[in-house]
Amino acid sequence: MERRKFLTTASLGAAAGAGMLLSACGKKEEAAPQTAAPAAPAVATGGETIRWRLASSFPKALDTIYGAAETFSAKVKELSGGKFEISVHPGGELVPPFGVLDAVQQGTVECAHTAPYYFFGKDESFAMDCTIPFGLNSRQTTAWMFQGNGLKLLRELYAQYNIVNFPMGNTGAQMGGWYRKEIKSLADMNGLKMRIGGFGGRILAGIGGVPQNIPAGEIYQSLEKGTIDATEWIGPYDDQKLGLNKVAGYYAYPAWWEGGPQLTLYVSDKAYNSLSKEYKAIIECASAFAHVDMQAKYDARNPTALKELVAGGTKLFRLPKDVMDAAFKFSQEHYAELSAKNPNWKKIYADYEVFRRDQHQWFRFSEAGFDSYMQSQKL
Amino acid sequence: MERRKFLTTASLGAAAGAGMLLSACGKKEEAAPQTAAPAAPAVATGGETIRWRLASSFPKALDTIYGAAETFSAKVKELSGGKFEISVHPGGELVPPFGVLDAVQQGTVECAHTAPYYFFGKDESFAMDCTIPFGLNSRQTTAWMFQGNGLKLLRELYAQYNIVNFPMGNTGAQMGGWYRKEIKSLADMNGLKMRIGGFGGRILAGIGGVPQNIPAGEIYQSLEKGTIDATEWIGPYDDQKLGLNKVAGYYAYPAWWEGGPQLTLYVSDKAYNSLSKEYKAIIECASAFAHVDMQAKYDARNPTALKELVAGGTKLFRLPKDVMDAAFKFSQEHYAELSAKNPNWKKIYADYEVFRRDQHQWFRFSEAGFDSYMQSQKL
Repeated sequence: MERRKFLTTASLGAAAGAGMLLSACGKKEEAAPQTAAPAAPAVATGGETIRWRLASSFPKALDTIYGAAETFSAKVKELSGGKFEISVHPGGELVPPFGVLDAVQQGTVECAHTAPYYFFGKDESFAMDCTIPFGLNSRQTTAWMFQGNGLKLLRELYAQYNIVNFPMGNTGAQMGGWYRKEIKSLADMNGLKMRIGGFGGRILAGIGGVPQNIPAGEIYQSLEKGTIDATEWIGPYDDQKLGLNKVAGYYAYPAWWEGGPQLTLYVSDKAYNSLSKEYKAIIECASAFAHVDMQAKYDARNPTALKELVAGGTKLFRLPKDVMDAAFKFSQEHYAELSAKNPNWKKIYADYEVFRRDQHQWFRFSEAGFDSYMQSQKL
Repeated sequence: MERRKFLTTASLGAAAGAGMLLSACGKKEEAAPQTAAPAAPAVATGGETIRWRLASSFPKALDTIYGAAETFSAKVKELSGGKFEISVHPGGELVPPFGVLDAVQQGTVECAHTAPYYFFGKDESFAMDCTIPFGLNSRQTTAWMFQGNGLKLLRELYAQYNIVNFPMGNTGAQMGGWYRKEIKSLADMNGLKMRIGGFGGRILAGIGGVPQNIPAGEIYQSLEKGTIDATEWIGPYDDQKLGLNKVAGYYAYPAWWEGGPQLTLYVSDKAYNSLSKEYKAIIECASAFAHVDMQAKYDARNPTALKELVAGGTKLFRLPKDVMDAAFKFSQEHYAELSAKNPNWKKIYADYEVFRRDQHQWFRFSEAGFDSYMQSQKL
């Protein structure tokens, strides 16, 4: 079976938790035991070749997200005429999937590609470099980064960790997870054991759910055995590869916890500052290319996968309004609490919150008006 | 008055029609009288500096769209360590705004930045490199280009014109225009004189409207005098600068004719082929950076402008369903007719149509589910 083959591949096995876009990681005790030797200092001078290593948090099997780092590396090489080479390593090869922030901070690797909300245990503010429940969608996140104050504010945060960050990919709004039984009201969430981590898990717990932290490689079996009642993963294209439709019949939308999660390139500030202006621009533009290309890849591949899932018997359902409302209310209260106790959160969220309000107000008109009309047509 | 100042600036005056995102141009007889001397051949070799000229179809006053070419040029310079310089020229400075395709084709300039639907008079297929009524939205267009067959198919079209094309910006879904009276049903469209051009104009005419082709600099006066009943332009940020709210009280959404118009970089194939692999990659990545940055700029700036317009008394309204339905029906029939008589259209639209169906089916679930929930909240 293709699914079993997928689940037992060394690449996925080694980085079992790597695809967990919402795993409750980022706690200090889970930080990377550094298995790799410190990188040699790399300085951009005349004609010599620079070689960097990029530690991805993801397994090779995720050609979408992992692929973004490969795209980035290929563009860096092309832009430099072959003089700047960045080798890409899947989660677990150099450092554990969730050890990449520490590894870049300590200079073990020059750069990494990750989902920053993994590190909310260090500081909840990292989640705003990725997504927070009921936050910005994909395009809005990009707008906040490129033309709002997002990148500026997050660079201040990352400077505390000796990291320079660049947006590098987005999955778009994710699906709301796989369930063994349809969720019909908020009452059905009570005691529901769902594999979901990180920030989303906190909010799920706030509305009666029981978040479970399970690595990617074990999700299928946990759901099959009934150890968990539900799981979220990413979207149709990635979920289909994991075979989740074989062990849960109901597929929900939308993931209120992931309206547009961004992936980020981390570069060691020491390594970055050693580069010429030209090579700094190469990092910026190659990551921007990968940023737009990764969202395009998800958008291009998800529709076919969803059609195949539905043709195979998967039943789609919209998460009930009372579930959404309870989660929304709890999340906003939680953000207010964080603002009272985390100065980084307070500063960044103050800007994020205003930007979010303005974006969703604006998108209701032409964007939603055009989209909803098109979605209602027989095309 | 700031508006009058804006309307009389030399930069806008010289390129009066340049901002017309839907002007009925592209007819052969409107092609550029070539006022500029042919460019010197530029070959990328050792350490010498390459200098190119970029002819924009837009006036400097449009910092959003015109700005994308400046962003592109700045990144090309940074990426090349200052050795590859592209000067950016507003519409009318080197060649007329709508003469840029001819100018690149003939090698008068090495590159240009334009809205390809300007050239639907040469071949309707160019519109699919920008937008067609009831087409793809911004993200979907990018997906078709970067990860669908869009770029491949359009490169085949442009090869017939000695041009290599790169996506470089998108405005997002535009607003549906300014009206002196609210449109309440399809009957109100009958005989409505509206400034709108190109492809949208064809469809407007099909539902009873009377499309008018008026340069940007004359729109305000035409509406003030009542020579026209309505006009479309771009969106809140750009429209506000033109002062259209002073002469029309009603602002519609959505522009069914522009769900996500893309701007494109045209490069002369001769100039492009003279470049090293490294410099070709620089063109690709710098344009991708400008692509993502321009949409972000619109998204970041439109919300404030819309709030100011509404605070100033502008009344928003949604175009009635019977207007949308009539335009939708007519547009789809028109596309079928084009497939019967234009082989380029037939080939490209066959792919576009399937991609569009799949995209809008997929976006209904998590994307629309997340967005519509957020839009209904008091944030």
